[in-house]
Parts: sequence; structure tokens; C-alpha cells
Amino acid sequence: MAKKTKIFEGKTKILYEGTEQNQAVVMFKDDSAASDGKQKGTIKGKGAANNQVSTFLFKYLEGYHVPTHLVKQLSDNEMLVKKVDIIPVKVVMRNVSTGSFCKKYGFEEGKDLPLPILELFLKNEKLKDPLVNEYHIYAMKLATQQELQVLSKMTVKINAVLKSFFQRRNMTLIDFTIEFGRLGDKVVLADEISFDTCNFKDIKTGEFFNRSEASYKEVLSRVLS
Amino acid sequence: MAKKTKIFEGKTKILYEGTEQNQAVVMFKDDSAASDGKQKGTIKGKGAANNQVSTFLFKYLEGYHVPTHLVKQLSDNEMLVKKVDIIPVKVVMRNVSTGSFCKKYGFEEGKDLPLPILELFLKNEKLKDPLVNEYHIYAMKLATQQELQVLSKMTVKINAVLKSFFQRRNMTLIDFTIEFGRLGDKVVLADEISFDTCNFKDIKTGEFFNRSEASYKEVLSRVLS
Repeated sequence: MAKKTKIFEGKTKILYEGTEQNQAVVMFKDDSAASDGKQKGTIKGKGAANNQVSTFLFKYLEGYHVPTHLVKQLSDNEMLVKKVDIIPVKVVMRNVSTGSFCKKYGFEEGKDLPLPILELFLKNEKLKDPLVNEYHIYAMKLATQQELQVLSKMTVKINAVLKSFFQRRNMTLIDFTIEFGRLGDKVVLADEISFDTCNFKDIKTGEFFNRSEASYKEVLSRVLS
Repeated sequence: MAKKTKIFEGKTKILYEGTEQNQAVVMFKDDSAASDGKQKGTIKGKGAANNQVSTFLFKYLEGYHVPTHLVKQLSDNEMLVKKVDIIPVKVVMRNVSTGSFCKKYGFEEGKDLPLPILELFLKNEKLKDPLVNEYHIYAMKLATQQELQVLSKMTVKINAVLKSFFQRRNMTLIDFTIEFGRLGDKVVLADEISFDTCNFKDIKTGEFFNRSEASYKEVLSRVLS
């Protein structure tokens, strides 16, 4: 096989050129990233688990008419995707209030929110991904009003679909972070949906899933069950 | 005159019971408040200037069909208002990027924004007034969707009206902070619009108006001119 051309290396994934011009290969690494974006070691099998979870969930969401960048799974830790123009906004959806979010807004720790909360963050590590609203987004020309409406609606739908998907697997979907990309004039779900980008707790025990090798395996096994 | 019953004392204003049950008296103090909310001395004549500027601008905005809580000016530093149920959201409108806003989002200092930016902040000193979006507001039950639409539209209109008002007085309206209240089933502009809640620069010199006794007088004199 020919040497792969790297397009971009992130903390947890590497993007390579695909064999077709409009495609790319996502390679999921075992490296893990702390919430402040700094590297903190590796977790064996994490890359493969995240790749399989993401592939499964993208396919599952396609079944609910949520368009994604997925073409197919290539190997244990590689996914073939359509090349998209990433919209530089991190979209976070919260069902349960936890951690710094509680401190910031005065919500009680670990409680179901009365309504899910969608948050948009500027994807800019140097600025520490500040929270933005639609006016910031238009002024910075990050997305159009139509794109923002589409991705917000899609996020609400993804949340509804995944919440009940995980509920059937005895997991509460606490919150998740997703990204979208432009594919021609369409907005599609991109990046990944994995245990690197979601938080869960077990419905039976009420325990949070911690970032251990066992948890990544457990998430994969429950997703595939 | 009977002894006044204090309803609430803030850093820069005191609210008293009015003689009529559904009215209140706002007394504008000379005390000034730093941006971090801590007291920092007094500025002679500030209360009177702010009261007159606010009264004038509320009347002016009423002329543009923006409903306000104003009844009338009572004295140099007192304003008679309708009692409203304050919506606990600070509404900020920005035409020019300055200060901490620039640092937070990476905008260039002192530049006209390509589009005005409206920001909503939770009015909660203990939490340091965090930025919120409509989802936070609905989950915290701070305002209904209809109230939020009305107050956002009103803010855009207030900005358009005041921008050209100040432009004719050789002032750039950099940004301002306003509050709204419920009056029956109506949303009305409340609190104040003064040099305590607006930032200006002089169009001719390009200089920012600093918080001095002279600046408060200058703002009042230009408003009334």
C-alpha cells in the first residue's frame, strides 16, 4: 500500500488523504486528551473502540435521516469519510448538569435538566473555545443563519435518538460534543461520536463511566449489544 | 413628605415605594461601580446626569414605540416608574469591539463589528453574570420564548434608534447594557440608559469617553442638545 499523506494530526485522531480525491481516512489513536486539551497518556484499545462506536452510531443515525460524513469502516481503527469543510463550532448538548457547567450556572450536580441545553463554542484552542451565540457566529462568519438552524435542529434530533438508544442499554446520555461539516450545500454530522465525546452514567448503579480501558470496552460492548 | 420606604438599594440607584401602589421611585446615586461590581467612590453630579439622560432617552424611545417603565422625572435625581417584574437577564448590544470582549473572541480592539452582537447574561453577581443562550434561559425559566423574541427585537430597534441619535451628536455608541421587565403580559424596557450603562467615543477625535465628572456632564449636554 502507498504511503499515506497526512492532512492533519489532532490529539486523538489523524486525518489522511483517501485514495479517492473527495475522501479521507480517519485514524483513531489510543492517545487520550485531558479536558484542557493537553495530552495525558494512552489507553490501550481506545482508538479501535472509538472507531467502532462512531461507525456504528453514524450508521444508526443515517437510519434516522441524519446525514453524516461516514463512508465505511476500513479497519479496526480506521474510518473512511467524505471530505467536508468543518464548521468551526463545537456543539454541546446536555441532558444532565455536571461539573464546571453546574458551577458556572448554579445548577445542582448530577440532576436531569428541566430541558436539554444546547451550547455552541467557538473552536479555537488559543481562545479556550469560548461560548458563543448566533450573533457571534454571524459576526465571525462561522456559519450562516440557515446552517445554524439546520445544525441546531439536527442536534436536537441526534440527542433524542441517542438518548433512547443508550437508555435501552441502561446508560444515561449525560452530554455530548459534536461537529458538523459542509458537503456541497449540505450540512452533515462529522468528526466522531464516541466515549471521547460523550459522558454516560449507568442507569442501574447511577455510577459515571470513568475514562478507563475497561470503560471504553464496556461502552463498545453495550453499543454493539 | 412622608418617609420613603426602600424596596432595594443597588450600587448606583435606590428604589423606593411610590405614592401609588403600582409605582416606584428610582433615586440615582453619585456612587460609581467598577466593572467588577465593587464600589469605587462617587462622582459629583453623576446621579442627576444619569437620571436626566435616562428620562430623556426613555421618552425618546417611547416616540419610536418602545414601551418603557418611565412615568416621569420627579426631581434632579429621581424618576417615577411603573413597578415591573425584572427579567433577570442583562442584555448587551455591541457595535464596536473593545476590551475583554476582544480578548475573549479574538476581535481587533476598537473596530466596528461587521454585524452588531447581542449578548444575554444571567443577572447573578455570585455567578459573575455568565453569558447565556436561549436554552439556558428556558431551562432556568428566566423568560419565555415569546418574551425573549420580544426583548431581542426591541434591543435591535433600540440600538438602531440610539446609534443614529448619538451619531447626530458626534458620538459612536460602542455598546450598552439594558434590562427589561414584565408589566402585566407586556415586556417593557426598564432600569436605565445612561453613561453608566453605555460606552461612547467621540466621532471627531476618536477618543473614548472616560468615567469623569466632566464626561457625565458632557454626555448629558450632548443628549439634550
